[in-house]
Order: sequence, then C-alpha cells, then structure tokens
Amino acid sequence: MDFLIIGGDAAGMSAASRAKRNQPDLNVTVLEETMDVSYSACGMPYNIEDPARDIDDLVVRRAEVFREKQGINLITGCRAEAIDPKAKTVKAVDSSGKNREFTYDRLLIATGASPVMPDIKGIDTNGVMPLKRLSDGRKIKDYLAANNVRSAVFVGMGYIGLEMSESFRGRDIAVTGISRGFMTGWDEEIADVVRQTLADHGVILHENHVLEKIEKRGAKLAVTCSGHTCEAEMALVAVGVRPNSGIAAGAGIALGPKDSIAVNARMETSIPGIYAAGDCADAYHVVTGEKTWIPLALRANRAGWAVADNVAGNDVHLQGVAGSAVFKVFDLEVARTGLSVEEARKAGFAPAAVTIQAQSRAHAHPGATPIWVHMVADTQSGRLLGVQMVGREGVAHRIKAPAVALHARMTIADFGQTDLPYAPPFSPVWDPMLTAANQLQKKL
Amino acid sequence: MDFLIIGGDAAGMSAASRAKRNQPDLNVTVLEETMDVSYSACGMPYNIEDPARDIDDLVVRRAEVFREKQGINLITGCRAEAIDPKAKTVKAVDSSGKNREFTYDRLLIATGASPVMPDIKGIDTNGVMPLKRLSDGRKIKDYLAANNVRSAVFVGMGYIGLEMSESFRGRDIAVTGISRGFMTGWDEEIADVVRQTLADHGVILHENHVLEKIEKRGAKLAVTCSGHTCEAEMALVAVGVRPNSGIAAGAGIALGPKDSIAVNARMETSIPGIYAAGDCADAYHVVTGEKTWIPLALRANRAGWAVADNVAGNDVHLQGVAGSAVFKVFDLEVARTGLSVEEARKAGFAPAAVTIQAQSRAHAHPGATPIWVHMVADTQSGRLLGVQMVGREGVAHRIKAPAVALHARMTIADFGQTDLPYAPPFSPVWDPMLTAANQLQKKL
Repeated sequence: MDFLIIGGDAAGMSAASRAKRNQPDLNVTVLEETMDVSYSACGMPYNIEDPARDIDDLVVRRAEVFREKQGINLITGCRAEAIDPKAKTVKAVDSSGKNREFTYDRLLIATGASPVMPDIKGIDTNGVMPLKRLSDGRKIKDYLAANNVRSAVFVGMGYIGLEMSESFRGRDIAVTGISRGFMTGWDEEIADVVRQTLADHGVILHENHVLEKIEKRGAKLAVTCSGHTCEAEMALVAVGVRPNSGIAAGAGIALGPKDSIAVNARMETSIPGIYAAGDCADAYHVVTGEKTWIPLALRANRAGWAVADNVAGNDVHLQGVAGSAVFKVFDLEVARTGLSVEEARKAGFAPAAVTIQAQSRAHAHPGATPIWVHMVADTQSGRLLGVQMVGREGVAHRIKAPAVALHARMTIADFGQTDLPYAPPFSPVWDPMLTAANQLQKKL
Repeated sequence: MDFLIIGGDAAGMSAASRAKRNQPDLNVTVLEETMDVSYSACGMPYNIEDPARDIDDLVVRRAEVFREKQGINLITGCRAEAIDPKAKTVKAVDSSGKNREFTYDRLLIATGASPVMPDIKGIDTNGVMPLKRLSDGRKIKDYLAANNVRSAVFVGMGYIGLEMSESFRGRDIAVTGISRGFMTGWDEEIADVVRQTLADHGVILHENHVLEKIEKRGAKLAVTCSGHTCEAEMALVAVGVRPNSGIAAGAGIALGPKDSIAVNARMETSIPGIYAAGDCADAYHVVTGEKTWIPLALRANRAGWAVADNVAGNDVHLQGVAGSAVFKVFDLEVARTGLSVEEARKAGFAPAAVTIQAQSRAHAHPGATPIWVHMVADTQSGRLLGVQMVGREGVAHRIKAPAVALHARMTIADFGQTDLPYAPPFSPVWDPMLTAANQLQKKL
C-alpha cells in the first residue's frame, strides 16, 4: 500500500516515521518543497540570538536518516501542485523543474502554514524578511552577519515578534515593534506586564500602527506605519500565518476556520482516504466543542501520529486542542490555556473573570517575584473556561494544570479543591491559581 | 454563639479568621499552647540557613493582629487538657498554671502533629533536637550560633532531613544522614537521583540504619545507629510525626489512619458539633476513596476554612487529598502526586508503571538538564494513579497537571491527549509527562 505525504516538517515526518514503525512494509513517500525536514522551527529565535551557533543545530533528524535508517522515500525540493482524488494521484514539480506524478492509496496533506506578507509597496525589498521556515532563519542570520545590523523594525508583535525582540536585544540590536493590536485575546493587566518588560529592555513599541510602505533609504529601510516612519537596517514581518490549504481546496476538500483544512477527529478530510495534519488543518476546541484553527507544534506532532495510526487501521480519535500556548519574552514567562472572556462570550458562554496578583514563593521566602493569574469561568455552568498567567518564574509549567482541567471539563469549584503541592521555594501555601479560583467562585 | 478552637497554627487560625469574616458576631476563642501563632513552619529550613534572618520573619500574622484587628479571643500559652462533649466544655491550663474552663457551641480540634522522638537512651541530651514548631527552629538557630556547630547528624532523612541538609550545607556544616529506609514510596530511579545530589553536596548518607543511643562525648554527641557511631555537635531528629489526637480520643471521638482524628467531608468528627482540621485530622484520598493521613499545609488551611464555613451553616464538603508533595533538595526539585506502585497495589488496583528520562528543554536549546518522570496507571480501568518527578527545573509546577488529572479521575489515554503548551526554553514538544503517558499506554 502507498502512503503519500505532502510536507516534511512536524506533522509530515511524525506521520512518516510512525507509519513505518506501525507497518514496515508500507511504501511511505514524502514530498517536501524545501531542502529542510524535521527541524525545531520554534527554536529559531534562540538560535538566531547566538551568532556562534549554526542554524542547522535545529535539525532534529537529517533527511539521510529518514531515507537510510527508516526506509522512507523522502523527496526534498519537490513541490506538490495538484491532487486528483478520483485517480488518486498527486502532480508535483521536482528540483530540476521536471513534472512528476505520484499515486497513493492514502494521502496526508501536511503543507503547514505560510507567513502573511502584507500587500504593500516595498514588501519585496532586500532586508524585509519573514520567519517561518528554517531557510528564513538562515537568511536572517546571514543578513545580520553580512550587514552588521544594529537596528531592526518588527512589523507585528505576536509570539514571533516578542521572542525575536529578546533574540535581537541579546545581540544588542535596537528593536522597534510596530503592531496593529497588542496581545489581542489576552487580559489587559497581563499585556501591561509584557509592555513594561519590553520597555525595560529598550524595545520601542508603537501600537495601533498599520504598515503602509517600505522604501530603501541608503543602507537603511524606511518603514512607514500610520504616517510614522522608522529607519532600520532590517525589517522582520511577523503579522501572522495562513494555512497552506490551496492544494486541498483545489481538490474539492472542505475547508474549516480561517481556510484551514477541515478534518474530523481521525484527521480525515471530507474525502475519505485523504488526511490533513499540522498547521494546515483545523481542530476541535475542547472547551467550545467547535472547530478552531490554532497552529502549534504539539498538535502537529500528535496529529501526524494519529494519521499514521489510522492509516494502519487503528481507529484513533483526537480530542482536540485547548488553546494552550506559552512563550518567553526577556525575563517573563507568559502562558495561556482555554478561552479569553471575549472568546467565551462569542462561544455562547456567560463568562466572569478575575485577575489576581500573588507572589511566586512563600511568605518570607527570598527571591519571590510577582505572578499574575487571570481566570475565566462560565457563570451558568460554573465551568472553568480559561487561564492566562505572567510572571518571572513558575508560569510555563503551572499553566499545564488548568489545561488538564479544561480537558476534564472541570468546574471552578472542583479546580479550586485540587491538591496542588506546596513548598516555600515554589509558591505560597495557596497556589496563585487556587487563590484566583477562590476569588472567581464568589462571582458565580 | 461560641466557636472554640484548640490550636493556633495553620488550620486553627485559618478557621478563626474566616469564621470572623463569615460571622462578625460569632465569639471566636483560640487556645494555643505555645506563644507562636500563624507562622510558616515549612519555611524554617530556609530561614535557619541564613544566620542574618530572624526566625520571627516566618510569622505571617502576629497575635495582636488577630486580637485587635480581627476581634479573635486568642489565648496563647494555654494548653487544652480535656473535652467534655456532654457539657460542651474544654478544660485547660493557662500560662500561669491556672486551671481554666471554656464552653463552646462548636469546637474545632486543630492540635497538629508532634515529632516522633525515638525511645532510646540519650534522646534528651542537650543538642538533640526536633524541628516542628517555630520554637524548635528558634532553638536550633540559637544552638548553631552559641556552639559554633560545624557538624550535625540527622536521624531520619525524610522531607525535613533533606531540606535541612541543604540548609546546613549552606552554612557549611558537615551533615551525616542516618535513615532506616530512604524515600520510601518513591520510585528507585528517582531516589537514586536524590542520593547522587546528596553525595555531590557532601552529605554522607547511611541507609538501613536504626538509632540506638546518643551520648555526650566532650563537646560532641556520639550518635550510635546499627552499631556504627558518628560524632557531631548536634543531632536533628526527624523520623516522622504523629497526630496530636489524645485529647480527641479522650473525649470518645473516633480515630482514623495512624490514630489521626477521623472526620467526614465536612470536617466533622464522630461527635456532632466537634470538628477537626490540620495535621491532627485524616482525609479522603481522591484516588482510592479511602481514608488517609497525609499532614500537609494546604490541606490544613483549606480544612480550616471549610470548618468555618460549616460553622456558619454553609454545607461545605472537601473532596480530599491526592497525596501531592514537593520539596527542594540542593539543585533538585522533587515532586509527587497520587499513589506509588506499592500503594496502588495495596489499594486494590493492578498497577503498571514506567520511569522515563527526558530533557527539560527543547532539542538544541541551551541549558537543558535531565528530568525523570515516573508514572503509574491501573491496567484494569486505565486510570492514572500517580506521578513522581525529579529534575533541576520544571518539576515543582509540572506536577500540578497530573494532580488535577487525579481529581478528575482521568485515564492515562485522556491525560496523554492533553494540550500542554510548548516553547523551547521550557520543554520538548512532547512534554516529558506526555512521553511517559505514551509509554505507559503500551503497557495497559
């Protein structure tokens, strides 16, 4: 049986590896458009920060290993162009420009997502770069070295903009961030803590600014946003990503939120035998039960495995995502899981919320720092709907507890009764999340 | 109405404060045997480590505040001797040695626990000390300063012995630990990591040793265990605690595990109107559904609140404890929740377990250290039963996720599907707990 995979990053290579483990006799072919497979895309900001490190350190497993050790027919530099679901074939163009055709019994579309590049004058200027693929990271690193970049403008201050702020400041590059909104979907108190740390680390932030044009001005770029122009040697464009679902749509496959590829709990698309996984595909949200599109790494890996297991005839269903995310920006850990108040309202809940400030360590324990917990619950059912946190320690892992609670559809009352262990170096006796739950219960 | 409380630490003072908030007209009287109320007992090892800090830094709220600001009739230096449930009176002896009698409508027994002092020759020698009350901490600190202590023997290497090892090594005091078992109820691989860190920090550990006698030998103590004698200037005895349930037993109140005071989910004892909370009382275990005695700070505080709420006529039920605990020993974070394999077997489950080693950060992210996850599940029901972890970062807060899962009675399959957020500085894409769950599922 032929299992064909379009896309050789997290979801595609997870599926390929697991499929060969499940069924050593399966013919597994992967078509990857670039030359890079199986790398830690999320690690790029940290790698870029250190000029001494090779960007290829981020490669988890090299193409040769997949080919020689695992017996996967991995074809790099090969772009899939069209799927014919009736003939069960995929048309592609290889690195020499030659047209090729591949047949399949089962197909996985794992085409990922692409950075949105605003349609403005000068977006193609040299030095204006996105960060998504490993080749983007390589280009940025080479550009920084070749041009002795001392200043950069970031268009977009989402996770990537924030992580890259730390990365560039670590190289002593001046950073000016331009953003339309700032931490949309986050509690305003938490956003304020992030704003403050950006200011503390010398990052200039212009909110409510929209990119208008980019021009070359001598050795610099002039980036104009809402009538205001910043000059810098480089511009990072990170205003968001969109799912690479064109090839699926062209084959008549149904699309989901934000034009991602709609899949059921088995990762199968609207055409039987064709699966989708990773940043190109949608998912059920475990809190709302509705479809959502939140492209993140764990889901991509997990979905890749699920596809391989379903191809093998096991009937694997994934429950979905909780909207859990975490990032580091300078000395802050920032994390969330579940819904914001606004998302909860849109999903038909009647939310109440609190934001509390507590200490990261026990009374009188040295080294304590503040921690903020924002918690959202439904006033009708009492269900916990979401948690957001920021602090200098204990945030990134603490958020995993409410993530589990969301999967279990716990009420705020039940979450408030959980036995969370205590020792003075790690938290107050009442964990800040329990304090938030206690406060929030009074509003229900 | 008169609400009388015996014991003025975590459970007692939590109950007193909340009772006054709930019902400002309630007459709340607290009888506390010592002169110290409301202090962070768990913080003592860290305070003792720093000679410059006053032990009274650990006092969270001073007696005067309870008396003057909160209107609580707090009587320190007053030892309760007997309860007469028919007359609804408590006999006590005050600090001047005078007999006193108190009446009550509702009574809370919050007498805590006392350190077990082995019945051996020389246990009363000067320099042989337990660590439970604030006065114990004060004595140890004074003794260290007055005697220029350079070496100590620890009899017992449980949480207190381990935390005090770090404390004393921080003061450059040589530590020899003597213990009957070592990390009983913990996975052997995890115990080995702790053993190694003790060795790395110069703590000498003698396992399978039983204390026989202590003698004064010049300026030193000679501590003999299983025929082997160690000399040191001081001996810390920390072989465990027992519940102070004598006064309850004397009043005919039913006892639970390890002679703790049996309470229902409302914290009421076998005699209506008499409650018990804190280290003297038992609790339901959320995994087994059976009674257990695990004296820890969060439960004490929570139970104190529940008593106050029930005294106010609210019908508050506590779900119980999950056996969650965390401690720091040198550079290690060590944590557990739920049952060990042996505890699971004793509770009638058919457990399977795995211990995996993973990295604390993503592939190629600098600063990663190893982390070990031990996970136990029931092969019959698939339920998650317990998790233990050790590592240099990300353990203390990570354990809160499986603690929540235990409250929700999650299966290992469902826990393995949870959306735990990922960023390279904090974990691999697959959180080590998910890796453990994936491995363990294969054994079910």
